[in-house]
Amino acid sequence: MAETWATLGVDLHLEPTGPGLRRGLTDALREAVRTGRLTPGTRLPSSRSLAADLGIARNTVADAYADLVAEGWLTARQGSGTRVAERVAAPAHPAPARRPAEHARPAYDLRPGTPDLSSFPRTEWLRAARRAVTAAPHGALGYGDGRGRPELRSALAGYLARVRGVRTGAENLLVCGGVAHGLVLLAGVLRARGVHTVAVEAYGLHVHRDLLTRAGLRTIPLPVDGRGADTGALGDAGAVLLTPAHQFPTGVPLHPERRAAVVDWAHRTGGLVLEDDYDGEFRYDRQPVGALQGLDPEHVVYLGTASKSLAPGLRLGWVVLPPSLVGDALDDPASRTPGVLDQLTLAQFLGSGAYDRHVRSARLRYRRRRDALVAALAEHAPDVGVTGIAAGLHAVLQLPPGTEQQVVRAAAWHGLAVHGLSMFRHPHTTVAPRDALVVGYGTPPDHAWTGALDALRRALP
Amino acid sequence: MAETWATLGVDLHLEPTGPGLRRGLTDALREAVRTGRLTPGTRLPSSRSLAADLGIARNTVADAYADLVAEGWLTARQGSGTRVAERVAAPAHPAPARRPAEHARPAYDLRPGTPDLSSFPRTEWLRAARRAVTAAPHGALGYGDGRGRPELRSALAGYLARVRGVRTGAENLLVCGGVAHGLVLLAGVLRARGVHTVAVEAYGLHVHRDLLTRAGLRTIPLPVDGRGADTGALGDAGAVLLTPAHQFPTGVPLHPERRAAVVDWAHRTGGLVLEDDYDGEFRYDRQPVGALQGLDPEHVVYLGTASKSLAPGLRLGWVVLPPSLVGDALDDPASRTPGVLDQLTLAQFLGSGAYDRHVRSARLRYRRRRDALVAALAEHAPDVGVTGIAAGLHAVLQLPPGTEQQVVRAAAWHGLAVHGLSMFRHPHTTVAPRDALVVGYGTPPDHAWTGALDALRRALP
Repeated sequence: MAETWATLGVDLHLEPTGPGLRRGLTDALREAVRTGRLTPGTRLPSSRSLAADLGIARNTVADAYADLVAEGWLTARQGSGTRVAERVAAPAHPAPARRPAEHARPAYDLRPGTPDLSSFPRTEWLRAARRAVTAAPHGALGYGDGRGRPELRSALAGYLARVRGVRTGAENLLVCGGVAHGLVLLAGVLRARGVHTVAVEAYGLHVHRDLLTRAGLRTIPLPVDGRGADTGALGDAGAVLLTPAHQFPTGVPLHPERRAAVVDWAHRTGGLVLEDDYDGEFRYDRQPVGALQGLDPEHVVYLGTASKSLAPGLRLGWVVLPPSLVGDALDDPASRTPGVLDQLTLAQFLGSGAYDRHVRSARLRYRRRRDALVAALAEHAPDVGVTGIAAGLHAVLQLPPGTEQQVVRAAAWHGLAVHGLSMFRHPHTTVAPRDALVVGYGTPPDHAWTGALDALRRALP
Repeated sequence: MAETWATLGVDLHLEPTGPGLRRGLTDALREAVRTGRLTPGTRLPSSRSLAADLGIARNTVADAYADLVAEGWLTARQGSGTRVAERVAAPAHPAPARRPAEHARPAYDLRPGTPDLSSFPRTEWLRAARRAVTAAPHGALGYGDGRGRPELRSALAGYLARVRGVRTGAENLLVCGGVAHGLVLLAGVLRARGVHTVAVEAYGLHVHRDLLTRAGLRTIPLPVDGRGADTGALGDAGAVLLTPAHQFPTGVPLHPERRAAVVDWAHRTGGLVLEDDYDGEFRYDRQPVGALQGLDPEHVVYLGTASKSLAPGLRLGWVVLPPSLVGDALDDPASRTPGVLDQLTLAQFLGSGAYDRHVRSARLRYRRRRDALVAALAEHAPDVGVTGIAAGLHAVLQLPPGTEQQVVRAAAWHGLAVHGLSMFRHPHTTVAPRDALVVGYGTPPDHAWTGALDALRRALP
C-alpha cells in the first residue's frame, strides 16, 4: 500500500509493513520533518482527519504524533494543535557518527513493552504444537467452553500457583487475548456492576487508560512514588488498576504496607483490584514478589500474559476472576477465547516444562543486558540514576530536570527510539513531573544490543 | 468441576467437560426431567439466577432452556416462566430400540452450525504451521498491524476474489476471531455512526441478534420466504444483516431482484449491508452464488470465517470493509486479531493450495451425506419436503403444521439432538410460523452418520 497524504499536502508515501503501521507512520513523518518536506511551524492535520485520509486507526496517528512530540520533532499545544517544531535542535552532544538521514527507521529500539522476539523458542513451540494437534480430541475443535480449553486452564492454574502464588482453580480462569483484551472484558463487567470510576497509576500505559475511558469509565490518577502507587488515595473509585510486582513504567514494587492497604480497601468497600502482572516472571534480585491476588482471591482480579514471556503476537493472556464474576465475564460481548490450537500448544508447552526452561534462559539473558546497561551508565554517565532494575524488561534513567525532551531528541539523532517518562503520565495527575527515560532493554535482538547501548550513551547528558 | 444446583433444590451434578458446557447442562437437565428428579410442573429458576448459581454465562443457561423447550421437556410461557412440561409425552412413533435413559448425552447430533470436526486436516495444518513458524520474520511476533498479518490479508483477498467474487485489496480486510467477533466490531462502528436499528432476517441465529442488541442496537425482523429475506421491508434501518448465499436457516439463496434491491437501498440511503457468508464455499448444484459485496464494495461489509470450512475452534474469520470504515473498525475497542502463528499458518494453507483441496474434498463428503439424507427421506418419509439443499451443511425438513415440537421430542427419545425451525425465529416477527426441522448434516463423524440418519427417520411422522 502506498498512500498520498492529501491532508498533509505533501506527497508522502506510507508502506505500513514490517514492524507495524505505527512505526512506519512515525518514521515517515520524522523523515518528512528532517528533510524539510514538512517545514517548521507547519500545522499538522488532526489525528482524526489524517487517520480518515489514510484509512487507519486514529489512535495510530495519535501515537505517532505523541512519539514525535516526545522526540522533539513536533510540538503540541492546547488550542494550536500539533505543529512541526520551530527549530529542530541539533543534538546537544557530539555529532553522530552517521548522518541522521540514514535513520529513516530507527536503527535501535529501546522502547519498552516488547521482549526479544529473536529468542522466541520456535523449535520447542512447534514441537508442542505437533503434540497438541495430534492429541486434541475432535470435540476440542468445536466452539467449546467460553473460558478456554480445560487443558490450558488447568496448566495455568497450576503454574500460577507455583510461580506467582495465585490461588485459583481452573474453573475461575479465563483464557483471553492478552491484558488489553482482559481489560476490555473487565470494563464491561465493572460497568454492568455500576462502577463509574477506576483509579489508575499516575504513570502507566495510555492504551490501558484509553480502553477504560472508551468503555465509559472515568480514570483517576493515583500518585506514584518510590513505594509504588499511593493506595491511600482511592477516593470513591469502584476499582483500581495496579502493576504491583513491577510498577509500569517506574519499576518499583508495591510496598507491603500499600499491598495490605489496597486489599483492606477492597474488602471494606467491595471495590475490585485489577492486578496487571505483565512481567511478574522476570525478577532478578531475589524471589519474585508474589501476586496480590493470593492475598484476597475474592477481591483481586489477576491479569497475566504470554506477551512478555513468549511473544505479543501469540495473543495469549489469562484472567483469574473471583468466582462471583465468572458468569458476568462470560456474558460480556467481549468474551472470546484465542484459537484452540494455540491454547492446546501453550498447555503442552507448560506441561512439558518448556515454558519454565524458556523463562529461565530469558531471565538470564535479560539480566545480562540489564547488568551491561548499568555498567555502561556507571562508566559513561555516572550522574544518571538508574531505578526499577530489580525486575522486568525495562529500567528508568533519572535525568536532570528539564532535559527529558532534549535527550529523547538526541537519541533520535543517533538512530535510537526511546520514550521519555512523560509519555506515560496521566493527563490529570498533579504529581510533580520527573525527567527520565524509560529504557526497554528486552527488545533489541542480541546482535543490536551493543549498538543500542552505545547510541543511548551518546544521547545522555 | 461438580456443582450443586442450590437454585434448583435438587442434587444435580454438572460436569462441564467434553463437547461444551451448554450441551452438558442440557443433558443434565434433560436427564433430571426424564428420571423424575425434576417433577412435572416444577418451575425452573430464571436463567440469570441459575447462571449465577453455577458461575456460568446466562446465555448458556438460556440456550439450554431453549433446547429443552424445543425438545418438549420444558415449557416456557410469558409470565409463568420456564417449567418442566406437565406430561412429557411418549414418542408418537415406534418405541425406541434402546431405552431413552441410556442417552444422557445424545448419541447423535444433527444440530446445525458445526462441520465434521473429525475431518479437520491435522497433518496438512501442521505442515503449514511448520512452514509458517519457520519462515516468520522476528517482527511478525510483535504487536503488529491491527488488521492482521499482511501475508494472510493478501492471501485472503486473492482467495475471496477468485472463489466468492469479493472485490477488495488486502488493506481493507481485517482478520478477526470469526463472524460473531466481526459483528461485535461492526456493532461498535454502526453505533459510532449514529445507527440505532439493524434489520435482520426473521429466521436467523439468536446469538447474532443478541450481540447486536447488547451493543445497543435494535433489531427488526425482515420476513423470509422462498426468495430469501424481503429486502423491500427495510424501513428506517441503518443497516441490514443478511445471509445472501444460503439463508440461515431456511437455506434459500437471496433472489437476484432482492440482491439488486438491497444494494439500491444501501446506495440510496447510505445504509450498510452486513453480508454473513458463513458457508458460501459449500454449494453443490451449480457455480457458487457470488458474494453481494462484489456488487457494491462501498456499501457491503463482507464477513467470512474458517469455522465451517475448517473448524470453529480456530477462531479465524475476516471482515472486508468499505475503505471509509477501516479506521473506525480499528479504533473500536473490540478490534483484536487472532494469534499471528495461526494467521501465518492459514496464509500458508491458502497459498499452498491445501485450503482449496480441503474444501473440495469436504464438499464431496457433505454432498454425499446430503444425497443420503434426501434418499432416506424419499424412501421412509416421502411426505416430508426437503428444502435448502443446494448448498451448505444443513437442510430444512418441512413438517405438518403443529408437529414440530413433537418431532423434536421424539428425536430426543431416539438419542438424536436436532433443532426445530421455531428456535431461530425472531421474537417480534409477524410472519406465520412454519413447522420444520433444521438438520445439520455436517456435524456427525462418518462412523455416526448412518445411525444419525436412522434415528432421524424414526422420529419423523
